[in-house]
Parts: sequence; C-alpha cells; structure tokens
Amino acid sequence: MIKVGIVGGTGYTGVELLRLLTQHPHVSVEAITSRSEAGVKVSDMYPNLRGHYDTLAFSEPDAQQLGAMDAVFFATPHGVAHALAGELLDNGTRIIDLSADFRLRDAAEWAAWYGQPHGAPALLDEAVYGLPEKHREKIKTARLVAVPGCYPTAVQLGYLPLLEAGLVDTDRLIADCKSGVTGAGRGAKVGSLLAEASESMKAYGASGHRHLPEIRQGLADMQGGSVGLTFVPHLTPMIRGIHATLYATLSQEPGDLQARFEQRFANEPFVDVMPAGSHPETRSVKGINTCRIAIHRQENSNTVVVLSVIDNLVKGASGQAIQNLNLMFGFDETTGLNAPAIMP
Amino acid sequence: MIKVGIVGGTGYTGVELLRLLTQHPHVSVEAITSRSEAGVKVSDMYPNLRGHYDTLAFSEPDAQQLGAMDAVFFATPHGVAHALAGELLDNGTRIIDLSADFRLRDAAEWAAWYGQPHGAPALLDEAVYGLPEKHREKIKTARLVAVPGCYPTAVQLGYLPLLEAGLVDTDRLIADCKSGVTGAGRGAKVGSLLAEASESMKAYGASGHRHLPEIRQGLADMQGGSVGLTFVPHLTPMIRGIHATLYATLSQEPGDLQARFEQRFANEPFVDVMPAGSHPETRSVKGINTCRIAIHRQENSNTVVVLSVIDNLVKGASGQAIQNLNLMFGFDETTGLNAPAIMP
Amino acid sequence: MIKVGIVGGTGYTGVELLRLLTQHPHVSVEAITSRSEAGVKVSDMYPNLRGHYDTLAFSEPDAQQLGAMDAVFFATPHGVAHALAGELLDNGTRIIDLSADFRLRDAAEWAAWYGQPHGAPALLDEAVYGLPEKHREKIKTARLVAVPGCYPTAVQLGYLPLLEAGLVDTDRLIADCKSGVTGAGRGAKVGSLLAEASESMKAYGASGHRHLPEIRQGLADMQGGSVGLTFVPHLTPMIRGIHATLYATLSQEPGDLQARFEQRFANEPFVDVMPAGSHPETRSVKGINTCRIAIHRQENSNTVVVLSVIDNLVKGASGQAIQNLNLMFGFDETTGLNAPAIMP
Amino acid sequence: MIKVGIVGGTGYTGVELLRLLTQHPHVSVEAITSRSEAGVKVSDMYPNLRGHYDTLAFSEPDAQQLGAMDAVFFATPHGVAHALAGELLDNGTRIIDLSADFRLRDAAEWAAWYGQPHGAPALLDEAVYGLPEKHREKIKTARLVAVPGCYPTAVQLGYLPLLEAGLVDTDRLIADCKSGVTGAGRGAKVGSLLAEASESMKAYGASGHRHLPEIRQGLADMQGGSVGLTFVPHLTPMIRGIHATLYATLSQEPGDLQARFEQRFANEPFVDVMPAGSHPETRSVKGINTCRIAIHRQENSNTVVVLSVIDNLVKGASGQAIQNLNLMFGFDETTGLNAPAIMP
Repeated sequence: MIKVGIVGGTGYTGVELLRLLTQHPHVSVEAITSRSEAGVKVSDMYPNLRGHYDTLAFSEPDAQQLGAMDAVFFATPHGVAHALAGELLDNGTRIIDLSADFRLRDAAEWAAWYGQPHGAPALLDEAVYGLPEKHREKIKTARLVAVPGCYPTAVQLGYLPLLEAGLVDTDRLIADCKSGVTGAGRGAKVGSLLAEASESMKAYGASGHRHLPEIRQGLADMQGGSVGLTFVPHLTPMIRGIHATLYATLSQEPGDLQARFEQRFANEPFVDVMPAGSHPETRSVKGINTCRIAIHRQENSNTVVVLSVIDNLVKGASGQAIQNLNLMFGFDETTGLNAPAIMP
Repeated sequence: MIKVGIVGGTGYTGVELLRLLTQHPHVSVEAITSRSEAGVKVSDMYPNLRGHYDTLAFSEPDAQQLGAMDAVFFATPHGVAHALAGELLDNGTRIIDLSADFRLRDAAEWAAWYGQPHGAPALLDEAVYGLPEKHREKIKTARLVAVPGCYPTAVQLGYLPLLEAGLVDTDRLIADCKSGVTGAGRGAKVGSLLAEASESMKAYGASGHRHLPEIRQGLADMQGGSVGLTFVPHLTPMIRGIHATLYATLSQEPGDLQARFEQRFANEPFVDVMPAGSHPETRSVKGINTCRIAIHRQENSNTVVVLSVIDNLVKGASGQAIQNLNLMFGFDETTGLNAPAIMP
Repeated sequence: MIKVGIVGGTGYTGVELLRLLTQHPHVSVEAITSRSEAGVKVSDMYPNLRGHYDTLAFSEPDAQQLGAMDAVFFATPHGVAHALAGELLDNGTRIIDLSADFRLRDAAEWAAWYGQPHGAPALLDEAVYGLPEKHREKIKTARLVAVPGCYPTAVQLGYLPLLEAGLVDTDRLIADCKSGVTGAGRGAKVGSLLAEASESMKAYGASGHRHLPEIRQGLADMQGGSVGLTFVPHLTPMIRGIHATLYATLSQEPGDLQARFEQRFANEPFVDVMPAGSHPETRSVKGINTCRIAIHRQENSNTVVVLSVIDNLVKGASGQAIQNLNLMFGFDETTGLNAPAIMP
Repeated sequence: MIKVGIVGGTGYTGVELLRLLTQHPHVSVEAITSRSEAGVKVSDMYPNLRGHYDTLAFSEPDAQQLGAMDAVFFATPHGVAHALAGELLDNGTRIIDLSADFRLRDAAEWAAWYGQPHGAPALLDEAVYGLPEKHREKIKTARLVAVPGCYPTAVQLGYLPLLEAGLVDTDRLIADCKSGVTGAGRGAKVGSLLAEASESMKAYGASGHRHLPEIRQGLADMQGGSVGLTFVPHLTPMIRGIHATLYATLSQEPGDLQARFEQRFANEPFVDVMPAGSHPETRSVKGINTCRIAIHRQENSNTVVVLSVIDNLVKGASGQAIQNLNLMFGFDETTGLNAPAIMP
C-alpha cells in the first residue's frame, strides 16, 4: 500500500482521481488539498463519494505533509506544480502532474503560451511525458511525470501508427476535436452554463490553442522532424468525452492500415482498435481509461481519417495519471482501471 | 463461483447486469439469450463490453442450458418468466425475475393490469418480493424472487419509515415521480427519440400506471390495511435516474423525523439518509445501487416531503437483482456493488 | 408606436423581451440599461439579435431617459424597481415589473421573505398583479403592474377553475413543479453548469421557497380564505419550461371537470385546455406565451391532478409582460405573441 | 395569396414548413399529405400547432388536389418527387423539392448513390439547384427547384468566397461537419433514442456519405474543374443545428480574408459574416434561416479554417425552401423569415 496526496482536489480531475482510486487495492489517499475548501469533507462536496472516504477532508497545502507521501498528484492550474515540485522530489516523493507545467520541453515555448516565465526549468530535463504507449520504459523509473493533456492524448494515439511508420505527409495534419464541457473545468463561467452550452455546438480557439504546441511536440517525436498541424477544438453539449477526427494525406501506399493499427496496439491494454468500418462513440469510454480508434479511407482518396475517442477526465487526465502511477510503482498497469463503461 | 444465465439480454437491464457482473468475483455469466440477436457477440452490440465477455454471444433460449445454471435472471417483457419459471425451478435453478411477472400477489389484479391471464399462478405463493430492506430474511432462502420495479423501489424506500411507524395518513399519499428515458426501455419509439424527449418534461400515465398496484401492495404491507395513493410518473430529459417526491400528511407529531429515518436505515448498505436539509441529485447515484433520501417539512405545515433518488437501472433493476442474488447465495450483500457513482 | 425602456437587460428575461418585441409592430425599444455592460451592443452579447437592434447598446440607467418612455420594463433583481418606480410614475411612465418587488400586497411578508425592508410600500395599493386571466380589467388602467413569477403563473392557472368553483379542499394543495435551468437566471453558479445540472434531477427549496407566499396569495384570492399549500420546485435538465403537477382533493362531486376547464378558459387567448387524457409537454410551449393544461382523475380516487406547462421565460416572464403591455396600451392582447412554438 | 401543398408532411421538414408558414402573409397551406396519418389533424400530431391550422388534417396524396396548387413542397424520402413531378409541372404547379431527387445533375451518379434508377431524368435539365446565394436569378423563373441538403448548404456557403476567388487548393478540401439528431429524421431508430444519442459524439459515414457528390458538384461549379473533398459528418447530442468546420490550403496570399467574405455576402439577407475572431454557435441560428460564418487562420499556417453554422431544418431545409418560394413568386426574399433565433 502506497500513500498518495492530491494537490488541488476540488476540480473535476481531482474528484475523478478519488473516484477511480476507490478501486485501487494498493493506494491510500492520505491528503487532498484545497485552499478554498479547507475543512470541507470531500463527500460533502461530492455526494457520489458518500460511503467512500468518509473521513477525508480538504486541507491547506502543507509541504511537510505532502513530502511524507510516496506520490503526489497535481490537479492544479498551471504554475502550482512549478512551485512545489522541487521540494517534494528532494523529499523522495514522486510527482504525477496533471497540469501543463512539465509537458513542453522548451521553457521558452511554455512561457510564450502561458504568459509567464517557466517556474522550474531545471526540472525539465528529467520530466517524462506520461504517454505510456510511447514512453512506457522511461515512465517506470521517472520521478516526475507530466500527464498529457486530454486533446493531446486522443490526437497522439490516433496518429501514432501513421507517423511512426512514416506513411503520411506531416506538413498538413488536421485534427478536428470535439470535447464535452468538463474539459473547461469546474469554474463558474457563463459560457459553461447548461442554459448556454447545451443544445449548441461551437468551435473555440480556432486561431490557436494551448494544446497545439504539446501535440506538435509529441507528433514530431514520432516521426522525427517538425509537423504542420491545424488543431481546432469544439465545445460539445455533453459532460464527458473527446472525439478526435484526424485527417492525414498518405505519402505512399500504406498497405493494410487496419492491420497496421491492430499490430501497433496489440499489447496496449488501453487502446482498442475497433473493427474496420466502425465509428467509435465517446459514450463507449465514459468513465474508463480506454482509447477506442477506427480508421477510414474514402474511395479514390489518399486522405486517411482516424477516429479516436477517450474520456477526457480518465484517459485524458486522472485515469492516465493512475496508469502512470501503476508503471512507476511496479503495479500491474491496469490495476484499479478494469471496470467497463456505463452504457447507456 | 456460481453459473448464471440471463434471459432477454438485449435490453437495458440485461446489459446493465453484464456491466455490473464484471465486478462480481463469484459469478460467471454462462448464457445470455435473445431470439432476435442470436449469434451476435454482446460486445458487438454493447461496445462498452469490449475487453469483457469477449467470447459471450446471445443465444436462442434453451431450457436445458438454462436449467444447468445456478441462477437465471429474467430481463424480459412480462409473460416470459411465467412460461419458463416452473421448469427451471424443477431443475433446481433459482430465479431472479426483473419483470413484473411475480410482483403482484393477486393473479386477478395482475391480469387486470396486464391484459392477459396470469401464466403461473401456482408459483405466486412462493415468490418473494425482492426488496431487501423489507424482506431480507425471506429472500435468503427464496427460489423465486420478484425484483421490484424502479418506481416502486424509490417510492417504497422513501415511505418505509413513515408507514412502519404509523405516522401518516395513508388515505392520501402522493408520489410524484420523475424518470430518465431508459425507464422506457430500448424500444425504438418516436416518443423516446432525442429529438422528441430532450429539452422537455411531461407526465404520462397520469390516469393510472402499471406500477400503481405494486406500490400500493408494498405500502399496505408496511402499515397494514390499504392505502390511498396517487402516483404520477414523468418523463425527464436524462438517460438514467428516478427522483421520487413523496408527500404525506402527518397524523401525529412525529418527533425527530431525521433521526427516525437514520435509525431505520442505519444498517442498510444501500440506503443513504442525507443530512437534514439536503436535496439529493439523481446523478449522485448514477450507475450504483444506492438510494439516497432526504426529509423535509415546511414551516407551519403537517405535510412531510421525502425526496428519494435511485438509478432506475441499478437499484431500480439490475443492481437490486444482484443484491438479491448475493443474499440468496450467501455472499456479502454488497459484493460487486461497491464502486462509487460517476460525477460529474 | 410607443417607446419603451428595459432596466436590467442582460439577463434572460431582458433578452427575451428584446426577442419577442422584434415581432411587435407598435413598440420601439429606445433604451436598455445595464451597469456592467454599458456601451456593449446587445447583438454582441446576444448574437441571435444580430440583424435586429443593430444600433441598440446597453446604457447606464438614467432616470431622465427612462422617464421619457411610455413604459419601462424592469427585468432586475428584487429591490431595483422599488428605488425607481416612484419617480417614473410621477413622470407619467407606466411600469411593468418582472421582478418580485410588487407581487406581494403585504410589505411585511415581502420583507420577511426577501430579507430587507420593502422599498416602496406606498405604491403597493395601486400595483396590479398582472395575471390577465384573473385581473384583466384592472390591468388595462394600471400604472404599475407586477408580472407574476414563473412558478406562480403555472400553478395559479392550473388551479384557477377548481378554486373559483370551490370544488376542492384548500387545506392541502400540493404543487410539484419542475423548471428548466433558465429559471435560475444567467448568473455563473457552479450548480447551473452543464457539467453539474445536466443528466440529473433534484428538488430545491423543499423546506420553503420565495414563490410560496405569492402563490398562496393568488390562490387565496380565487376562493376566499387562506390556503394550505405545499410547493416543491425541482431543477430539470433542460433550458426552458415549467411543468406544474398540481394535486387537490375534491370536496364534492365536480361534474365534468374537462368541460369546466374548457369553459373557464374558452375566451383566454393564452390558455389551451388540451383534450381529455392529454399530457402536455413543455416543449410544446417553448418560446411562446401559451399555458397548456390537462386534467386527470385516477379511478376510484377523489384526487384531481392538473398538469400545467408554460415557458418560464415567456408566459412566466417576458411574454406575459408584453401581454400586460398590450392590455395597458389598448393593443390587441395577442399582438407580437402569435408565433407557434418550435418543435422539435 | 398563393395556395401551396406539402407532400409528406409528417416528418420534421414538413412540420417546420408549417411552423414557418404561419408567419408568411401571402401563403395558404391548402393540403398536406401523408399516407400513414391520413385523417389526423396536424395539431394533434404536433401540439405546437394548436391554435394554428386547427382545421388542417393530413390527407392521402391526390394528384388532382395537388395540381390545383400554385406550388407544392416535397418533404419526402427520395424517389417520391420523381414519380409526381412531371404531372404537377404539366398542370402548371411549381415544385420545391426538399428531397435529394433533383440535386445531382448526373442521373447515373444519382443512381449509384441511391441504389435505384433515377425516376425522372427528363426533368434534370430544367431543375434548378436552390442555393439562392449562387443561383438566385435562375430560381426566380424556375418551375422545379431542388432545395440543397443541410450539410451541402453549410459547406458550400462557407467555401463560396474562397473558391469563387480561386484562393485555395481544391485538391484537398476537408469538411468536418457536426449535426443535431433531427438530421436523421423522425424515424424510430434505436440509434436516435435519447438514451443512445445523448451524452455522446460519434462520426458516421466516414467512408462515404450521400451528401458528398452533392457538395462536390456545388463546389466544382464555384471554381470550375473538379474538387477533392473529404467530408465526415458527426452526430451531435442536440436537436437542431449544423456546425461545419472547413479546412483549405491557401494557394496564394489571399489578402484580407475577412473583408473578402464580408464583401461577397454584403447583400445576402441570410448570410451573416461574424466579426473577425468569432466562433459562431449553432444555437444562434436555432429556428431561423441565417447562416453565420467566421474565418480563422492560425499563425504561420497557410491553412484557412471557416466555421459555418445553420439550423439544419431551416436554412438546411424548410426555411431555404420558403426563401426559394419567395424568389419564385416575386415576394420579398425574407418574407415570413424575419424572426430572431431563440436564445437561450
């Protein structure tokens, strides 16, 4: 049994960690911090947790308490992990950061997109990008893992077999992505009200979004060289789920694409290549850590279309964080992540 | 490990049994029948089950195969269990019937509401009404359990402490109930289309609904004597969940109602009496077997209002069925039913 | 053509007034005020208004400007109309107040429910309660009309024929009401987020709600004497619509209830008594000023159930406000309110 | 006043024609046909129409009755207009066909996509494609207008300024489109149930969809020569609305794209070019005939992204049909189509 803490636990990724960890036999949540809700029991804020964690309450962040943990999850806005990571690592606590703080390797690029200097550039070298399907071995020994963003996870997994095999023109990749509203977090914004966001669809960030450099960095790693990517996210009237529709132009005859995808992911416990002709639904991964993928090629066209769906709060955040923890601590990779999705 | 079969597995209660049973360590699903989908793999019909039950396919109902099971669930329209129950019981197979076939003790009343003669009146005497909070001991030894309907479960649990204590006027109980659309099943009906049922609220069956006699029978058992009940169900634009708002007139000063409810359900693993002043949300029980209850009394009023929420497919059907199975086979009552609800 | 102003125009009732008034041939909106959005064009905030009101912008409230109007709508939180009403009336401007400021005749009761002294008790005598189906003649000559709340409108219209005819026991009326989320306004509250309020149903204010005294006052007017009313509102996962389910015990044989309702409302342009056995859907009144009503009586029961649906932003607010304006200024009562609901 | 008939009036485009035509001062609906619902009053099937068309009932299709109309709308599955068009035209009745029967100019291509021979190839020469923004003058004198499909309308309007000006590479256009569920019609299909389609997003027809040849034909007309188009539609959990996200690679520096779009559509009453940087929401066109468009170009990219939203039942079907009728009969083009969208 390992002891873990959660920093910034009032948001959706925080409560999702709590929910998922009820099913983990080797993890005990010993602390969950929130300045604004300090003293409030987690089950008072999230009644789905009544009967679980009945004594756990939010507390003020306390470096000493956190430093006594085996691992700490950061479920915080950007900048917070920068400030605390060094001290925790020095104490021997391993870090699984769900925020954007250590996803980009280039501190200058980080600063440009987040509008403030990078707060811990000295740690960038050892931070490991926590996409197990690409970096599993490094994750196992990492002290500091940057859990990928939700869009970046769906997009990278969908493009992975194509780019690793060098089959497509990387100058003009197009990722059209649709997300449920929990992607915008639990903040009380008018645009996220049911009265505003339901019964409607809209794009946002069409001129540039913070996940763009993260995706570009990840895709470039797959093939070598830079990529030209257009990424447009859309707000979809549902609670959870990301549907990434990925377009790429074939640069050569690819052979049997379906077989290529199936082979690449044959040993991946959380990537499900659907049968040829499928159209995965986001609801089929609601609440679980699976990414389901389907591949299409329209007749007489050299454009390949990849459909990739995840739950933004699970494989796109808290589930993938636990998958990383499992790897880091030598547990079976699927521990605590075995339940099927709820459907309908 | 016991072997179970599911008759009529293509509907929502069937797939929900499959989903929940993935978490049950002592049950193996050996057969699932469907005339219309015979030969289809369950994971082709319900992609959330991919990676679970990968070899299980729907089959034609076969009495011999079913008779080799320790228990059989009926997730069928009314009338089917009537036809098969006798033979299965003779084979020593125990039956957990999620349909309405054995809920009413009076065959004539059943015939009146369902428009056909009761098909197995000889079995009515031994059928046990599977509401564990009321009939736990009888369930443990039952061969044939009738799982309560979804509305009846929410309504009976909410009224239980009031009626058992004889605190209210039973001549004029009012149960105003709201259900998500899965209550209407998986049938392709125009009225259940997203385009018709979302962004709207309506009552149905306001002049009389089939769950009325079941609820009346159950409430009458609690206090003795008959009850006068008005029950109006409403179709709510959500997938799952029942919210029962129950009204009763106090016939005497009741003392501390909150304490009465807490005491009555203190040892019930699946009834959660919320703190005074609470308003339970249906989403707080999404996917789980819990009924959450709150009690209100408006100032200067002798009307008590009980709010009772369940997931219609879990505590209102498949979860309660497994709770009954656990009791019947001597497993811990909560086995396989421990995960928290997904929220948000 | 009359000139009107809207005070507090950024909320949902404000924009709904603007939307509806585009169809009114005799009204020109000359001013719309908002301290927080002063200078912003209404069509920038509400893109549905692009192509309409293209030059109208929010402005600081200005008593002189408002005093030059023929009529002013208040679409404000409580207390604002108290402060401005006297001066406007003195200038000859007539007031249609959508807030709660002048709905209760008793200043002390108002103060008790709203937690502050009544700000204009001297005007209470002349304020007319703007439910045209009850007070049409007084409205025609009123200088100050208090537009009924959304729940009170649906509840009063549903009970009206029963109470005027003295058919039911008024000691124990029960109004179980369901509202879409726009009833909670446009404020950015966590509980109103799509991620929190969709796919769920809950009651609120079950121990007492501010609309209770307004409804009680209105019902008491219908029959004489006081009424005992239990009112429980529920938050429903949809944008618009109120569904009131009303219960009453018959105190005598009522004759043909359907005919009584049809006769009572035969000349009402905005009350539609549905055929016997109907279940009105809230979507059938989306965007329009109609209240649809159906009456049910379950077999062997002396409980009558009335189903009453409105659009909370139209008949429950802005549409009824325009209906009042039409009466006050001698226009045909339906002017500008003739379009059918959108369905689906 | 002209007399019109509607063939196949029970579907969503039929009822939407009825709804919109209540606001048209020069059109009288004299007949609406449906074999399955003959004899049923339209207001019994669609309660939003109660108080409008109170005497209109569905009738069996009758060529003589329809031949007495000035115009007939076909709101039918494909093939029906083929069978009836010739006789009606011979009688002098003008036809506005909302089905796919006359959209493709090439009978062989039609036969290939619809799996049956074209039923009226002799009429193809005179059929006019009813996209007023492209073919306004021909529409004015047409006897037979093929109303564009919903996706084709959103896609063509979005690409129009780019293709007419020859600014983009037409070999690799990508149209990623999202539609509400009414696009699938009123048929009772499991996949369209609220329990199946809400809280989820999925693509469909990713390997080829019937609207593809229609869009290709329209785009080819704009620039000359053929186009290479990848079109992927998605089912979105909302009732109405299409959001088309259009990608194109610039083949030259385009100058001020915003200004180009504004100029191209300056005189179009139903195309609204939003301010630079906008993200149009589908709800901003709910119920109205407007297409709202925004243009984006990400930094250091030669990919232009056009966002184009319509209501699939209005500009994508019934509203555009009435716009065509207005042109054909010399009415002001916006007659009956002036109301703003409902929002929220």
